[in-house]
Amino acid sequence: MKSIRLICFTLLFLFSATGFNSTVYAQEHVDIEAYRDDAEKIINAAMKDNQKFEYLTQFADRFGHRFSGSESLENSIDWIVNEMKKDGFDRVFTQDVKVPYWVRGEESATLMSPRKKNLPMLGLGGSVATPEEGIEAEVLVVSSFEDLKEKADQAEGKIVLYDVPFTTYGQTVQYRLRGAVEAAKVGAVASLIRSVGPYSMQTPHTGTSRYEDGVKKIPHAAITLEDAAMIHRMSDRGETIRILLEMDAKTLPNATSRNIIAEMKGSENPEEIVVFGGHIDSWDVGQGVMDDAGGCFAAWEALRIMKELGLRPKRTIRVVMWTNEENGLRGGNAYRDMVMGNGSLENHILAMESDGGVFEPKGFGFSGSDEAFAMIKEIGKLLEPIGSNNITRGGGGADIGPIMREGVPGMGLVVDGSRYFWYHHTAADTIDKLSAEEYNKCIATMAVMAYVAADAEKTLPR
Amino acid sequence: MKSIRLICFTLLFLFSATGFNSTVYAQEHVDIEAYRDDAEKIINAAMKDNQKFEYLTQFADRFGHRFSGSESLENSIDWIVNEMKKDGFDRVFTQDVKVPYWVRGEESATLMSPRKKNLPMLGLGGSVATPEEGIEAEVLVVSSFEDLKEKADQAEGKIVLYDVPFTTYGQTVQYRLRGAVEAAKVGAVASLIRSVGPYSMQTPHTGTSRYEDGVKKIPHAAITLEDAAMIHRMSDRGETIRILLEMDAKTLPNATSRNIIAEMKGSENPEEIVVFGGHIDSWDVGQGVMDDAGGCFAAWEALRIMKELGLRPKRTIRVVMWTNEENGLRGGNAYRDMVMGNGSLENHILAMESDGGVFEPKGFGFSGSDEAFAMIKEIGKLLEPIGSNNITRGGGGADIGPIMREGVPGMGLVVDGSRYFWYHHTAADTIDKLSAEEYNKCIATMAVMAYVAADAEKTLPR
Repeated sequence: MKSIRLICFTLLFLFSATGFNSTVYAQEHVDIEAYRDDAEKIINAAMKDNQKFEYLTQFADRFGHRFSGSESLENSIDWIVNEMKKDGFDRVFTQDVKVPYWVRGEESATLMSPRKKNLPMLGLGGSVATPEEGIEAEVLVVSSFEDLKEKADQAEGKIVLYDVPFTTYGQTVQYRLRGAVEAAKVGAVASLIRSVGPYSMQTPHTGTSRYEDGVKKIPHAAITLEDAAMIHRMSDRGETIRILLEMDAKTLPNATSRNIIAEMKGSENPEEIVVFGGHIDSWDVGQGVMDDAGGCFAAWEALRIMKELGLRPKRTIRVVMWTNEENGLRGGNAYRDMVMGNGSLENHILAMESDGGVFEPKGFGFSGSDEAFAMIKEIGKLLEPIGSNNITRGGGGADIGPIMREGVPGMGLVVDGSRYFWYHHTAADTIDKLSAEEYNKCIATMAVMAYVAADAEKTLPR
Repeated sequence: MKSIRLICFTLLFLFSATGFNSTVYAQEHVDIEAYRDDAEKIINAAMKDNQKFEYLTQFADRFGHRFSGSESLENSIDWIVNEMKKDGFDRVFTQDVKVPYWVRGEESATLMSPRKKNLPMLGLGGSVATPEEGIEAEVLVVSSFEDLKEKADQAEGKIVLYDVPFTTYGQTVQYRLRGAVEAAKVGAVASLIRSVGPYSMQTPHTGTSRYEDGVKKIPHAAITLEDAAMIHRMSDRGETIRILLEMDAKTLPNATSRNIIAEMKGSENPEEIVVFGGHIDSWDVGQGVMDDAGGCFAAWEALRIMKELGLRPKRTIRVVMWTNEENGLRGGNAYRDMVMGNGSLENHILAMESDGGVFEPKGFGFSGSDEAFAMIKEIGKLLEPIGSNNITRGGGGADIGPIMREGVPGMGLVVDGSRYFWYHHTAADTIDKLSAEEYNKCIATMAVMAYVAADAEKTLPR
């Protein structure tokens, strides 16, 4: 996920929150007592065994990572669509989406001086290649963009290394996003960052980065926390650091990917839609199961449970697996364009996303009107049995961001995120980092919320 | 460290312990009240700042890993000897030791089927190479040696993968040590193990392995916990697994390394010796600072503190940095041969080793007579201020093992080992995993124990 977007939403909506005297409204419009039995059935169905986790595991093992443009992503989409058709949902379809197609290629970084050492690394998404012989240059270590400004006159012809320890994702990711541009502006020939994460076992993290028109595109990569800190210490001791960076990355013409959409039609107001899901693409390392096959599959399993239990809500429920969240957000934008184009945006009454890893769920962060918030809080009470009943202000998700900006109330599943950034965009984002019990709770949480919001007497107000 | 040796010692001495009615003896022979001031001074000197940790950090950054046979190991030994001479100890000398010289070379493992994936790996110490084109073969996954026996008729021509989750080091390391031999016996062409550790971020662990006369030598390597578990799952699903293993390892003729010995002569009984230290060699990954530059330097700093404080005990104190603990134990054996050869073994009254990482120290595990144990427990009370006063039965160290087996009482520094095997023999054994405060406490603990044991009224009895 791109948490920076979440943070923007959080700030936006925190400052626009206006008061909470709407509990009466909520109670009038969602009679949660009427849903206690259904909620219990859903929770029991979600929690009953490890089969759903085994299913996710098989998917992760079978396809591995699913990067935009890759065969693996499209094969995994084919497989999911086929399985969803077997599920017998009312409607399963895909939406073509043009996505960027960046290919990492061979790459390496080697500390050449003061001593030779291989530096585990990952090129950052969108980076240009080095010349074939690589770039070997002296390294200028900086602690921040301000520090770079102060040392600007030393940067010419050097590789800039941003050694910036993790604080929050929103802050630290700036060096991944803007590092190459700022380094190029002062004459650097390449830029490296300390990987964006709070903990490392020589673990490089990839992720997207940006260039700017009119600023030279220089290669941009991440090394590990350990090595960035070591090189920084060496530099502080007055040693001359030289690194050889070799990257073979290239950007190919846009590829075609797809959003996946599965629906259960509403029994009374089928034109009104509750949409929820995650993103099916991942970075090109690990299994991309925490980020975010887990979120996609949790939504899918939630819909399956409703179908199995014969719970058809008044309004339509739509599971969407968006494509290309990681390096383009083209799936989320294309979905917005589609629902704006066919006039159904106004009928999207709620959007939910799970993109923080399917760890122990805590509840939801909601962005919308006070009345809607009160109603969601009321529904949240049904989640007390599994402890995911904490509904707070502010939240959303990258993929639902485009429709939220058009006025759709939105919310993000909130989970125990204590290790999320250990694995985020690394080879260690693998199924073993998740657990069946926590995953099942996420499924139950999404299912209860989606079902009751879609079935409540009154439509969730904007 | 090789914890298996520790375990053997623990068992050996637990079963030979005979009772504890010797407190009176201890109190008669170590008047700890007389040492309270000195102990406080030592602790204060050890804890006063971060400079000792910074010194260790500089060493780790400067030399990196120090594998037997490598230039880096010998360069680091030269540097230490030179620094020790500047310290002005009574005597600083080295002992030549012939050590095995194994070189990893280029290596890789690739899952070829059911889907292609690079498998992060480390060849295991002593392994033979594959043919130049590598070995590509079907994989037989087993859960134990017993499981291999049951599946013996399926092993011919295959790569055996031992997917054995970590229980204790002593148990799990058997697959690293004996895996190649047992696999070769049933006709396998290579063997792989799940890395020996309880936690992983796609982190392979290396370590030593063995061949057996008369059994074909086959290549032997470790893959990560994540990948071993995944391949096991794939196999359980009936999928055919194929791996391409490429290893360029070779064993060169023995090289010459050195044990480093620094002494402070005893003021009254200089012929009696308290010896303590760690091993200066490491595996050929990471910085080898947890395992075991930290233990070596903690002992060294302990001796420096005594010298700075003018604390010269009655008996001689000797710091030893043994070489080649990791893949041969030649340093520990050579030291034993030297002290047996020159008749000083009988005068070694105590041997101490730190090889569990210089994490938060808890105390010592002691192996020796009841009388000696009581005396060590008494001295341990001086460590109450820093919480490292827990003296227990059973313990030692790989490098002091050879002299302990000849009758020298021995003990190992016991620390919080909760993350030791996360980093053990991996690229993540780097200085950032340690802390100045915990390191200083280890120094204080070693210094107080060594000083008082060397200065006590009566000699520690065998």
